[in-house]
Amino acid sequence: MHTQKLAENINGLLTALRDKRPLIHVVTNFVVMNQTANALLALGASPMMSWAEQDAAYMSGVSDALCINTGTPVPDRISTMKFLMSLAEGSGKPVVLDPVGAGAGPFRTGIARELGAFAPEKIIRGNPSEICALAGGHLSSRGVESGISPEQARSILTGHGRPDPNAVELPDGARTLLSTASALAVSGKTDMVLGPDKMVRIFNGSELMGLVTGTGCMLSAICAAFYAVAENGFDAAVASVAVTGIAGELAAARVSGPGFFLPHFVDSLYTIGEVDIHKYLRAEVHCF
Amino acid sequence: MHTQKLAENINGLLTALRDKRPLIHVVTNFVVMNQTANALLALGASPMMSWAEQDAAYMSGVSDALCINTGTPVPDRISTMKFLMSLAEGSGKPVVLDPVGAGAGPFRTGIARELGAFAPEKIIRGNPSEICALAGGHLSSRGVESGISPEQARSILTGHGRPDPNAVELPDGARTLLSTASALAVSGKTDMVLGPDKMVRIFNGSELMGLVTGTGCMLSAICAAFYAVAENGFDAAVASVAVTGIAGELAAARVSGPGFFLPHFVDSLYTIGEVDIHKYLRAEVHCF
Amino acid sequence: MHTQKLAENINGLLTALRDKRPLIHVVTNFVVMNQTANALLALGASPMMSWAEQDAAYMSGVSDALCINTGTPVPDRISTMKFLMSLAEGSGKPVVLDPVGAGAGPFRTGIARELGAFAPEKIIRGNPSEICALAGGHLSSRGVESGISPEQARSILTGHGRPDPNAVELPDGARTLLSTASALAVSGKTDMVLGPDKMVRIFNGSELMGLVTGTGCMLSAICAAFYAVAENGFDAAVASVAVTGIAGELAAARVSGPGFFLPHFVDSLYTIGEVDIHKYLRAEVHCF
Repeated sequence: MHTQKLAENINGLLTALRDKRPLIHVVTNFVVMNQTANALLALGASPMMSWAEQDAAYMSGVSDALCINTGTPVPDRISTMKFLMSLAEGSGKPVVLDPVGAGAGPFRTGIARELGAFAPEKIIRGNPSEICALAGGHLSSRGVESGISPEQARSILTGHGRPDPNAVELPDGARTLLSTASALAVSGKTDMVLGPDKMVRIFNGSELMGLVTGTGCMLSAICAAFYAVAENGFDAAVASVAVTGIAGELAAARVSGPGFFLPHFVDSLYTIGEVDIHKYLRAEVHCF
Repeated sequence: MHTQKLAENINGLLTALRDKRPLIHVVTNFVVMNQTANALLALGASPMMSWAEQDAAYMSGVSDALCINTGTPVPDRISTMKFLMSLAEGSGKPVVLDPVGAGAGPFRTGIARELGAFAPEKIIRGNPSEICALAGGHLSSRGVESGISPEQARSILTGHGRPDPNAVELPDGARTLLSTASALAVSGKTDMVLGPDKMVRIFNGSELMGLVTGTGCMLSAICAAFYAVAENGFDAAVASVAVTGIAGELAAARVSGPGFFLPHFVDSLYTIGEVDIHKYLRAEVHCF
Repeated sequence: MHTQKLAENINGLLTALRDKRPLIHVVTNFVVMNQTANALLALGASPMMSWAEQDAAYMSGVSDALCINTGTPVPDRISTMKFLMSLAEGSGKPVVLDPVGAGAGPFRTGIARELGAFAPEKIIRGNPSEICALAGGHLSSRGVESGISPEQARSILTGHGRPDPNAVELPDGARTLLSTASALAVSGKTDMVLGPDKMVRIFNGSELMGLVTGTGCMLSAICAAFYAVAENGFDAAVASVAVTGIAGELAAARVSGPGFFLPHFVDSLYTIGEVDIHKYLRAEVHCF
């Protein structure tokens, strides 16, 4: 059965991650650095968060994967981000791009597109507006929140909104974007991981995650941790979205508001294992 | 009854805030970004925290209110702060200034005064030393903590310390400062919101809030969220101080130390409603 | 009895700290600012975290101690760090240096060594790799984690690994480093505070602290708070390591994962007192 097999793959990657304890270089926004480091540590990876240009070559030499997040952009960080991307591309290091704010004005969209040109095997992880903005759409967003729904993005990215709703095919925008990425991880009420030949929809997670800053940013860093031990970006993105969604679900079940979500989420990342994945994973695989 | 009417006004603004879900642009210090974003999300607003100059015009175009906080000042951020202030002044956008560290040395005081010259309808929210420093007083502060008590500030700002303690009138310093602001929100054991023709004293809150970093900074961001839906800065400041104080009181009642204050505070902002406001509000209105 | 006397000294410094409420200027990395401020507030000190060069002279004039942490280094902060160090050296202010990432590449190691040349009475607090890198060793580290064990560092720094394991003497590297510091605080499973004529080993703490970002950075800031009230850096470092370790142990006993460690740790710093110190301190003093 498909979900069973998916769960086994995810669990295999989780075990590999904890065995290897990969060193993840995360250049992320100033709002979420602390929780991102803690999420990686709890899951079993090791974070590194410097963005000094003088540090970049060394960091790139020792890290197992790179996660670039464009939130709170400032010029010195953007230039280091590009340099790190080029080094990672040169060495074949796994890369994740989280294009925070793509679609929210020309500056942000421009940064995201420039970075998007590097490392063609990378995972791109974002909300529907961000991914669609990168895919060439001219979609409005609301600050750094998504202006469109996951269903709309799904329609745009997979062509489900076309006259024949059963025609599962990739429209041009998504196809172009996938020429610069091995997987697109689109977050929302339903999460979607899109590759050149298939799509996985994952129904885990909790609406509460939208009320806690940085849940998407943590997911992107987790994608990098899984990518450090996976054979390809697609499998890594699926495992990351599933593990984050299940951990989020477990955390949300223990709280009555957003205030205590984060510590429970970190604890869930620390304890999550095979039994949880098999018990809670809700996903569908669609082949194109 | 006055407190009853005040509670109704506050509750009306809280409902409006949650209905509108305003987008609040907060340029705040590096210590408190994360908790500020979470406080706004829990209350029902949407945060945006970028300070790149290239982003400023777009951000200003889409945001519903602006909060500027001068903690951990660095040159590139100060210039963006001024630019954002001038854009907000031009468009009539609600603005809150939190002059962190005004009075603590010439650099900080200078920044606060320069920013204070913009947006004459803004709310200024600070501790007694900061407000008095802006009002022209030459008062010592202790780092970023207040060097004077709320009672001393009240005396200085309202003239209560003059020979006739019943003479309720605004001294020159406060009057001058109020020509650049629609309200002064002075935080302390007793909070005080001061406008050109009246003062509200609010007795909510908890002493524990002084042992948790960033409670004042969160209040300033909350002032911006309320100002986005209020008719004037005075009403917004009163609602913000009251809601923050009550949420803080509810949080403090659930903890035995400062470590768990923040998650409980965020949860209180998430759940606070009409019943809490009517039950817990303790305030006095004084007309000049 | 030695541990009894040590506990009395530690408790005396803790009382002095809470009485004086020293103002601690901490220029630390962007990942841990928030929790560092909260840890200092809970313990009884007052934090100040600005790094603007224009602010430096004022800050140095009012602060009681300085803590410099080299994580997430960026050029503007490094130059302020040097300026603050030179001001502190000139005025005899207590200084703590946390050389985050020393040994992890030439840039980080270079910064740490440059800063290490200032303020010869300072405390240097780091993990074994960082301290050994400063002591002249050419040891690999893994990102910002230690590449060597505390036992290896002990061997390197104290000469325990030499042919005669009972010969307790300082090797050249540690002796040279101690010409620029009054104490070396080396963190690990067992913590070690090393001075020119003695060493204290402290067995408190919890392994969970390695899974929470910034526990070492908080310890460095706590060292500065104790140094503000201690007669010398060695006593301050011992008190800091002991109090942090015991508070960490108390926190770890209350949690089942890393997610809730921090709020419990902050609460433990808030409540820790004479009884806890006498009951939980496990330490050994070795004289050279």
